[in-house]
Amino acid sequence: MIQLIGLTEIPEINEGHNISEVIVAALARQEMVLDQTDVLVIAQKIVSKSEGRLVNLQEILPSEKAIQLAKKSGHSPQHMEVILREATNVLRCENGVVITRTRHGFICANSGVDSSNVPGGSTVCLLPIDPDLSAKKISLGITLSTNVNLPVIICDTFGRPWRNGAINLAIGSWGINPLRDYRGELDSEGISLKSTQIAVVDELACAAELIMNKLDRVPAVLVRGYINKDRSGCIRESMLRKEGEDLFL
Amino acid sequence: MIQLIGLTEIPEINEGHNISEVIVAALARQEMVLDQTDVLVIAQKIVSKSEGRLVNLQEILPSEKAIQLAKKSGHSPQHMEVILREATNVLRCENGVVITRTRHGFICANSGVDSSNVPGGSTVCLLPIDPDLSAKKISLGITLSTNVNLPVIICDTFGRPWRNGAINLAIGSWGINPLRDYRGELDSEGISLKSTQIAVVDELACAAELIMNKLDRVPAVLVRGYINKDRSGCIRESMLRKEGEDLFL
Repeated sequence: MIQLIGLTEIPEINEGHNISEVIVAALARQEMVLDQTDVLVIAQKIVSKSEGRLVNLQEILPSEKAIQLAKKSGHSPQHMEVILREATNVLRCENGVVITRTRHGFICANSGVDSSNVPGGSTVCLLPIDPDLSAKKISLGITLSTNVNLPVIICDTFGRPWRNGAINLAIGSWGINPLRDYRGELDSEGISLKSTQIAVVDELACAAELIMNKLDRVPAVLVRGYINKDRSGCIRESMLRKEGEDLFL
Repeated sequence: MIQLIGLTEIPEINEGHNISEVIVAALARQEMVLDQTDVLVIAQKIVSKSEGRLVNLQEILPSEKAIQLAKKSGHSPQHMEVILREATNVLRCENGVVITRTRHGFICANSGVDSSNVPGGSTVCLLPIDPDLSAKKISLGITLSTNVNLPVIICDTFGRPWRNGAINLAIGSWGINPLRDYRGELDSEGISLKSTQIAVVDELACAAELIMNKLDRVPAVLVRGYINKDRSGCIRESMLRKEGEDLFL
């Protein structure tokens, strides 16, 4: 059995807050002791806020390119400028949607730049600069306090091609192999599996979203009972397909 | 808190087996009583087997098109013929990969035709003809025995563009709205959310896969504690984008 346990009453996070300490305090309030089957899933937004990744759009001077693309997408020129600064290239800009490849390599709407659950009417929130590193720092900080090696996944909601609705995906991870590789293992008929790698960090992120959701202000979820002994890898190394290797770009 | 509980010791399923009865028997063995917060997630393969959706490739006569595409993909001509019969069109066929749109409207590898965990060296398993209807029948059968309206999701693993690793997605559902629609609701700052719909059935399918995995033979998982009162919709109606509405086709 796996349990998904929301960490509640987490205060509003601002720049400089130590997320590890916030999590350890939340665990203490809920009288929870970490164990070796726990994985922590954290919403990107509190990590970004703690790292000061907020931008006041009123302070942004849009480039000519941002002004032109903003006309096609319906974003403000300032918002589009921030989206472009976070991107290496723009893949689609039509029907009110901007799909970019971010500097990390994620393909997503608006370079992950988001205005929901952000204070101030003209402020937007950017993704962490290095989400794997953010996850590592949070994990190591928690280990310092608790002596438990806790895998950490940082997640955000992503739309996808071909299916309606967004789902939660991992944008950074530490202490857990993002992929469970079944290749060469034997199925129930004794036949070697040929091609199955499962993106378990994305599945863990999805599971956590069922507790987080958008309105309940539960920005962290403990997944308890997921046995995973392979701690190597991170999102940047394991999860992102290189340019030129994808059939749908 | 949400719990993910695997239903174990489910026997090998063959054509004609009643999946509702199999699930009710498994619940009884595990001394579990259904409650109103339960959602059942079932692996596609046992549903397909119960519906007789197995094909012996030795009985398949490949078309000229199948023979040609098989050369490009590395599949056998017979396997390719079955893939083509399940598809409305072939989107990609290169580097050993065949991506099709299935008759249901799913975009996936090999039209969902799969040879793992299937008895007999030359047998492949097809997706159910109407997975939403399969889910409905299983749900209604369980209600007959237990008097509980149990939402049912049928799932399969899908690769995706841009990210490595497959994840579990819903191919059929009944008794649960596939999408949680936040549009118009207020975020923590009191600002109306503009564009967020979450594909909760896919997130539930992902959560269940953490228990199922490929080798443990746990083809059904009960998700307990997920509060969802909107029971309308199904995968075909809610989840699949129409041709021409997608930016990446």
